[in-house]
Amino acid sequence: MISEATVGEVLIVGAGPGDPDLITVAGLRALRRAHVVLYDRLAPFDLLDECRAGAELVDVGKTPGHHAVPQDQINDLLVWHARRGRIVVRLKGGDPFVFGRGGEEVDACRAADVAVQVIPGITSAIAVPGQAGIPVTHRGVSRSFTVVSGHVPLEEEQYRALAGLDGTIVILMGVNTMRQVVTGLVRAGLRHDMPLAVVELAFSDDRRTRVATVGSASAAFALDTPTSPAVIVIGEVARRAEVDDAGAAAFDLAVGGTTRIGLVP
Amino acid sequence: MISEATVGEVLIVGAGPGDPDLITVAGLRALRRAHVVLYDRLAPFDLLDECRAGAELVDVGKTPGHHAVPQDQINDLLVWHARRGRIVVRLKGGDPFVFGRGGEEVDACRAADVAVQVIPGITSAIAVPGQAGIPVTHRGVSRSFTVVSGHVPLEEEQYRALAGLDGTIVILMGVNTMRQVVTGLVRAGLRHDMPLAVVELAFSDDRRTRVATVGSASAAFALDTPTSPAVIVIGEVARRAEVDDAGAAAFDLAVGGTTRIGLVP
Repeated sequence: MISEATVGEVLIVGAGPGDPDLITVAGLRALRRAHVVLYDRLAPFDLLDECRAGAELVDVGKTPGHHAVPQDQINDLLVWHARRGRIVVRLKGGDPFVFGRGGEEVDACRAADVAVQVIPGITSAIAVPGQAGIPVTHRGVSRSFTVVSGHVPLEEEQYRALAGLDGTIVILMGVNTMRQVVTGLVRAGLRHDMPLAVVELAFSDDRRTRVATVGSASAAFALDTPTSPAVIVIGEVARRAEVDDAGAAAFDLAVGGTTRIGLVP
Repeated sequence: MISEATVGEVLIVGAGPGDPDLITVAGLRALRRAHVVLYDRLAPFDLLDECRAGAELVDVGKTPGHHAVPQDQINDLLVWHARRGRIVVRLKGGDPFVFGRGGEEVDACRAADVAVQVIPGITSAIAVPGQAGIPVTHRGVSRSFTVVSGHVPLEEEQYRALAGLDGTIVILMGVNTMRQVVTGLVRAGLRHDMPLAVVELAFSDDRRTRVATVGSASAAFALDTPTSPAVIVIGEVARRAEVDDAGAAAFDLAVGGTTRIGLVP
């Protein structure tokens, strides 16, 4: 079970995919007890209002183009504060173990003999597609899902494997490398007409969902590039996306008006 | 954003991986407002204490060997109660879209013109390994993870793909088919000495974590079969499992005492 936070302990807390109400009850409790909170740019800022008066709030996240606190310094800060008897919360967007470097922070605490606990969070990899109407698995349609990061280059063998798996592929942090990834997948044998959805700002009023195919995605999104953070979903389930008006209109524009709005071509 | 529950609405709520404090704040709020709750055997029963007085609690889950309410009858119940102006919560273990048939329930509500919202939950696929010390992704070790169900038979091409992906493989509901799956993976080229961990009852005091390899797993767990629900993790990250004393001792017994306790052979 998840235990109560104690003094001198580090709690690595997943803040979830963006809606402050999608943190767990255990995560919120830890945040409310914390003396020090080290937070990321992907953690919902509204959650910081839950911290107690006098809590020290440290921004260690990076915004594109700005330097962030390097990982080893974050590790040092966690240990430094915990050794001074503080309850230290490391608040991260999504889940700490899904491309969140949570394992490295656990290692750093263990190496320093500091108590550490991980409180999981709702990962964007599942919740963002879900919010757009796309289940990552669906009976008779998708029997597996694979989550990859657009930041980590894939090799030919991985592309072949992803193409052969016949399941849902979810790409996080993939906006900048989308062209490269869809090219790799098609070369590896994935069907040109496999649906692909891009979901931006899923848990805000500005959510935008656009659908194309693996073959058409590079062209479809070239004129109106998705904004980070966005989640890309490839697979038959992407056909189920609820394409909103804004997304449909933008997509219609991007493909020169030849594609039916809201339907996978 | 997740909206407040309204009358005549169905909320499909992920209850998380077993610890009642790992439901989301939004999920707990919906549960507290519900007039009717249809729950699964995998949802933590303690959460039902949160329901308001007079709420109707319906057990639709199946325990092995006992019949459960068929999915189409669950769908009908959701619609029936919502049409009578009730706030209806469908409480499911884990996340509704990870082998949870959430998509089918959404479809049923939509077809009946009933308002429906999905509140995601922490999936066991990530949180159960995490609770045992295994991050599904880890810098320099695993750059992807794939979640499959042991209930759905895999074909040769899927085994080849999983073996070629070089990432973490997480198997849910896989205890009964483990022998078949590890055989399939080894035939498809996965290294015999790839670590494999089995985590049982992750969020209880009876948690047990055992580690073997893909090649040794069938023999290692034959004498002391894991109890459902358990999560199986295959990949280099499984080497990081925190093997508890009970698990280590049992594993040691199972392989005839020839394997070092707590270390991947």
